[in-house]
Amino acid sequence: MADQTFSYGQLSDFAQTVFKSIGCSEEDTLTATRCLLSADLRGVDSHGIARLPGYVRLWEAGRANTTPHIRIIHESPSTAVVDGDSGLGLVVAPYAMTVAISKARTAGTGWVSVQNSNHFGIAGYHAMMALEEDMIGIAMTNASPLVSPTFSTDRLLGTNPICVAIPAGEEPAFVADLATTTAANGKLEILQRKNEDAPPGWMQDSTGNMIIDPHGLKKGGALLPLGGDREHGSHKGYALGAVVDIFSALLSGANYGPWVPPFPAFMPMPQDMPGKGIGHFFGAMRIDAFRQPLDFKYHMDKWIRTFRAAATVPGQDRVLIPGDPERESEEERIANGIPLHESVVADLRKVADEFELNFPENQPA
Amino acid sequence: MADQTFSYGQLSDFAQTVFKSIGCSEEDTLTATRCLLSADLRGVDSHGIARLPGYVRLWEAGRANTTPHIRIIHESPSTAVVDGDSGLGLVVAPYAMTVAISKARTAGTGWVSVQNSNHFGIAGYHAMMALEEDMIGIAMTNASPLVSPTFSTDRLLGTNPICVAIPAGEEPAFVADLATTTAANGKLEILQRKNEDAPPGWMQDSTGNMIIDPHGLKKGGALLPLGGDREHGSHKGYALGAVVDIFSALLSGANYGPWVPPFPAFMPMPQDMPGKGIGHFFGAMRIDAFRQPLDFKYHMDKWIRTFRAAATVPGQDRVLIPGDPERESEEERIANGIPLHESVVADLRKVADEFELNFPENQPA
Repeated sequence: MADQTFSYGQLSDFAQTVFKSIGCSEEDTLTATRCLLSADLRGVDSHGIARLPGYVRLWEAGRANTTPHIRIIHESPSTAVVDGDSGLGLVVAPYAMTVAISKARTAGTGWVSVQNSNHFGIAGYHAMMALEEDMIGIAMTNASPLVSPTFSTDRLLGTNPICVAIPAGEEPAFVADLATTTAANGKLEILQRKNEDAPPGWMQDSTGNMIIDPHGLKKGGALLPLGGDREHGSHKGYALGAVVDIFSALLSGANYGPWVPPFPAFMPMPQDMPGKGIGHFFGAMRIDAFRQPLDFKYHMDKWIRTFRAAATVPGQDRVLIPGDPERESEEERIANGIPLHESVVADLRKVADEFELNFPENQPA
Repeated sequence: MADQTFSYGQLSDFAQTVFKSIGCSEEDTLTATRCLLSADLRGVDSHGIARLPGYVRLWEAGRANTTPHIRIIHESPSTAVVDGDSGLGLVVAPYAMTVAISKARTAGTGWVSVQNSNHFGIAGYHAMMALEEDMIGIAMTNASPLVSPTFSTDRLLGTNPICVAIPAGEEPAFVADLATTTAANGKLEILQRKNEDAPPGWMQDSTGNMIIDPHGLKKGGALLPLGGDREHGSHKGYALGAVVDIFSALLSGANYGPWVPPFPAFMPMPQDMPGKGIGHFFGAMRIDAFRQPLDFKYHMDKWIRTFRAAATVPGQDRVLIPGDPERESEEERIANGIPLHESVVADLRKVADEFELNFPENQPA
């Protein structure tokens, strides 16, 4: 196995030196690092430190501003629009979520749409910020177009994830974090690295035929909306991805649909962009704006225990609650370290050399 | 073809006499009729007048209260919980949506969770109430358990639909109205009437094997969450259905999961119910709480036109915008009438006889 394992502390120290090297303040460095590495801990390897070189390239290309003046440009008692000033999404998004939480404290709920941002890491990190406030947290973002709507061959939507985090009592929180496609792009990247076929129903080629080639996107293919095809409800996945795009970008003034800027800095920016940067949308709902939190949590525990105790199909030993796999990954990786693919380590070493930083030796087994 | 066609006016007059016969006030009769028949107009035949006998049976069984005292039992500036007092969902839901809209007028957004209600017809009717106020409307409801979570053979969730209605400028509104399952139960009912197989991926039997028998639910089978199986993202459909259940019932104090009461009055009520009636959740977001409505609508039109003009796969002549098929059905049926299956007509005649009402002759072709 070509993976190397590092402790959370090692990777956190390294990410901090990199964010500081590209001009982030002390506070932004801590926020961006925590946000980025939460993906590695939770097992979403595609969105963690593997993307650190990508953020550096965005900064080098002048597409990410590491000293942004992030601010509210429009608001009502329960809403706000935030201009991210081209900042790193890893910093802009936590700011916006803090605004949503603060609105919820006074108005019961808070809803924030964000323009002029960049890739924000995993939606789960932001939504889960609400949990410690006894609030439900919601986070979504649009992303560069890799997905075709039902019946189309054009790529018009991103994988546009939605996360909903709901506090419980004695049970761990319910955290549903999902791309609105059959499979997230990160899953595809893993198959690409291993050179394994994708299951039918994940992708189509440039003429709309289902394909299993994990490199199909580079040949003009597209990911498919959740559901896969019309008969299995792909129009629903398409509609959900569209709602994420509209809430994130049309409420805020960000770019949408085919105009969402790409994450890789070597890809050209779309022409005639109708908005600013990429868009996000956040929500926070105070539990006690609806009901006594103790009652709510009693029933959340009952809900979770009922589903966890349900009968299973042959070959499966349990029914999962949304958030279970990510929480278990986090426990495991805090204890035993974070494995990185050798190609990720090579990319990180390149960044280290560029800024004359030390990249850590991998943890002894 | 065994369908008979009636004008909207004929069916509306008949539904009104029935709602009055079971004790509804003049105002509730109009609300319930408009709400119920909006499903027939929009082509969601399973949720329209075909269900009128079902509502009558609920009333006869003492499970639906036609003179409810619907009221707010908890609130904050942007939220409320409504107790439906066992009223018809067709009346309780529009009341709750009005509360959401009224909260949004002052707070920017309004969010209402409902306990102690019954089946509310189509989610689209309620969400679309927001459109004429220049607001985004959101409606969802839980429903009696027909759906198994990923990896389970137990039926723990309803088809739990979500509707999001978004105003545009010159283009018609974007209205996404979707069950969080591969296929809505209504689609299955149509196959049952025609005795046609269901596509693989819609259902499983009591041991978790995929089946195509449209009567499989009666034999202990279950509908599958959107995605169909784990490899195609059924855990995402499960998570979405779960969020609908929690927002609708755990925020309000309604029944949830396996305890949601059935619509058919002949089915026994679940034991040890943890809440009251079924639950709904509604949202309204004022566009101008985020952005100038003219700017928003300009970009909504551009979004809609971009997606509508996208390249299509072979055999399809256009890419649909969510809400297109339902709006076209509405135009067609207002002009040419509403076709009802002969079994639906027979059920309605039975209700007419029971209350000594006149059932209309079908419209001359």
